[in-house]
Amino acid sequence: MDLVIGIDIGGTKTKIGLVDAHGECHEKTFFRTRDYPNLEAYLDMVKSTADELIQKIGQPVNLLGCGIGAPNASSKNGTIENASNLVWKGRVPLVEKLAQRMNMPMRIMNDASAAALGEMLFGTAKNMTDFIVITLGTGFGAGIVANGQLIDGYDGFAGELGHVDMTMGDGRLTGLGVRGGLEAYVSATGLKRTIMYMQSKYMVESRFRSIAYNDLHGEEITRAAEEGDEIALMAFDYTARIMAQALANFTAFTQPEAFILMGGLTNSGKWIMDPLEKYFNAFLLEVYRGKVKLLHSGMQGKTAAICGAAALIWENHKNKAS
Amino acid sequence: MDLVIGIDIGGTKTKIGLVDAHGECHEKTFFRTRDYPNLEAYLDMVKSTADELIQKIGQPVNLLGCGIGAPNASSKNGTIENASNLVWKGRVPLVEKLAQRMNMPMRIMNDASAAALGEMLFGTAKNMTDFIVITLGTGFGAGIVANGQLIDGYDGFAGELGHVDMTMGDGRLTGLGVRGGLEAYVSATGLKRTIMYMQSKYMVESRFRSIAYNDLHGEEITRAAEEGDEIALMAFDYTARIMAQALANFTAFTQPEAFILMGGLTNSGKWIMDPLEKYFNAFLLEVYRGKVKLLHSGMQGKTAAICGAAALIWENHKNKAS
Repeated sequence: MDLVIGIDIGGTKTKIGLVDAHGECHEKTFFRTRDYPNLEAYLDMVKSTADELIQKIGQPVNLLGCGIGAPNASSKNGTIENASNLVWKGRVPLVEKLAQRMNMPMRIMNDASAAALGEMLFGTAKNMTDFIVITLGTGFGAGIVANGQLIDGYDGFAGELGHVDMTMGDGRLTGLGVRGGLEAYVSATGLKRTIMYMQSKYMVESRFRSIAYNDLHGEEITRAAEEGDEIALMAFDYTARIMAQALANFTAFTQPEAFILMGGLTNSGKWIMDPLEKYFNAFLLEVYRGKVKLLHSGMQGKTAAICGAAALIWENHKNKAS
Repeated sequence: MDLVIGIDIGGTKTKIGLVDAHGECHEKTFFRTRDYPNLEAYLDMVKSTADELIQKIGQPVNLLGCGIGAPNASSKNGTIENASNLVWKGRVPLVEKLAQRMNMPMRIMNDASAAALGEMLFGTAKNMTDFIVITLGTGFGAGIVANGQLIDGYDGFAGELGHVDMTMGDGRLTGLGVRGGLEAYVSATGLKRTIMYMQSKYMVESRFRSIAYNDLHGEEITRAAEEGDEIALMAFDYTARIMAQALANFTAFTQPEAFILMGGLTNSGKWIMDPLEKYFNAFLLEVYRGKVKLLHSGMQGKTAAICGAAALIWENHKNKAS
C-alpha cells in the first residue's frame, strides 16, 4: 500500500499518522512535544514512533515520503524559525536533521499552509483555485491559495496573518510581542483574553468571576454562552467582530472564493459563527459582497493536521491522489 | 512595427499611448475623463484618439491588441464596477463596448495590477517572482504578484488594499464609505487630510493655516517640509507610520521580496521615504526583517500607467517582449 507519513508539530502535541492516496489516515498516534526540549531526542522519538505505526499496518508499505506541518516553518529553507509556541528556539534545521534518520522525500511547511493543501487535495476546497484556510487554535494561522497555487512567499514565510496589526499599534501583545496582532484577539487564546477584558470592562455577574485564566477552557466558554452568561456572549461577539474585520481585509488582498475555518475556536459553533457571518457581510466591500463563503473544514477534526502534512507529499503524486 | 495600445483610465485623465516590445511608449496623449460623462461618447473619443496616434507613427503598424488599466476593474468580467473616482456608475461593460469599436485582442485590469505586470515585463521587477506594486495617487492601489503570477482573485477584484481597515472600525471614511480604510490615510488625498488633522490637533503656527483644503497640493506640502513647517513634518511622519504598518501587515500575507512604490505621494521623496524605511523595519516581524525591499518604480513616471496597461497584451507575446 502506498502511504505517506504526516507529522503535525504543535506546541503541545506532535501528531503522527500514515495517510493514503484518498486522505485516509490508517494509523495515528501522538506524544507530548514539550517532553522533548532536546531536539535530537525529539527527532529520535519521531523516527521510532513512525516505525511503530508502519509495523502496525500489517501489510507491505510503500512509503512515498514524509510531510511535516509546523508553526513558523519555511518550506524553502526546510526550517522552523523563531516559533514562539515551540520549545526549540531560533532556527531549527528540521528537514536536514530528520532526513539523517529517515531516508525519504521530505517537505516541511507552515501548519496552516499544509492544512490548505490538505483541503485542496482531500477536503472542502477540492474544486477551488482561490481560498484561504484559517486555523484558530492557540494561535491564528493562515494558508493562502491563489491561482490554484499555495502562496509561499519569497522566503517561504507567507501567511503569518496572526501577526497582522489591526489596531494602528495600539492593542494587545501577541506571544511574539507584536502589538495589536490579530491572534491576540482571534484564537482560542484570544477568546480567553477577551473573557478577562470583559470582566475588566463591565460589572455584570458571570460564572467567570470565579474561574482563573489558567483554569479557563474553550468548552466552558461555549457552555456559558448556552446558559446566557453575558460575559461569554459579549466575548464571542467581540471576537467575531474583529475576526470579521480581518477576513474582510484579507478578502481585499486575494479575493478568495471561500475561507475554510478549522481549529479549537470553531468548536464553539453558532456562538462564534452567527455573529461572524453577520459582521463579515456588513464589513465586506460592496464589490465582494455575497461572493465569499465561510466554510468549515472538510476533513475530520482529529486527522486534519496529519492529512494536511501528508498532502505536502501527495501533491507530487496527484495522479494517484484523489 | 509591432505595437500595443495602452490605455490608463483615471478619474481625472485618460492616457493613451502606443507601446513597443521594450516597453517604450512611441506616441502618447491624454484627454479629460470627466469631459465624457456619457460612456458611448467617451468610447468614441478613445477610439478616435487611438486612431490619431497610429496615424502619427509614420510607418506600417501591426497592432497586437489593446490593454486597459482602470480603478475597480475586473479582468475576469471585462468590467469596471462601482468605481468611486469615475463618472460612470455601477457596472460598466467596458471591454465589450470598446471591442465593438476596435476589433483586436483586449484586456482590462485594475490599474495597480496592470502596473505590476508592467514592472515585471519592463521595469524594476524583471527578475522577481514575489512583489507588490503600491500606487499612491488619489487613492491607494495594489498589484500583487506571487509565484511569478498576478493575483487576480476569484472574481478579478484582488488587491483592493486601499479599503483595508487598519483601525478596528474606528477611523476616517474613504470615498467608498469604508471606515478606517487605508487610502483615507495613505495616498496623496490622505496626506492632505492629515494636514487638516494636524491643524485640529496642535496649535503650532504653519503656512497651512492660510491655505484651504481645496487649494492644497502635494508639492506644497513637500516644500513646507523643506522649510521646516511642523505641521508638514508631522503629517509626513504620521502618513509614513501608517503606511509602514500596512506594508508590514501585507508582508505577512504573501511575503514579497519588494514593494515597488509609485504615484503622486512618492514625489515627496525623502520626506515620506525616510520615516517609512524607519518604521517599516521596526514593524516587520523578526522573520521578515532585512528581507523586504522598498523600491521605486523602474518606469518613467509619465508613461508607467500606459506601459502597465500595454503589458496586459505584451504578456501574451513574451517571446517578443524584453
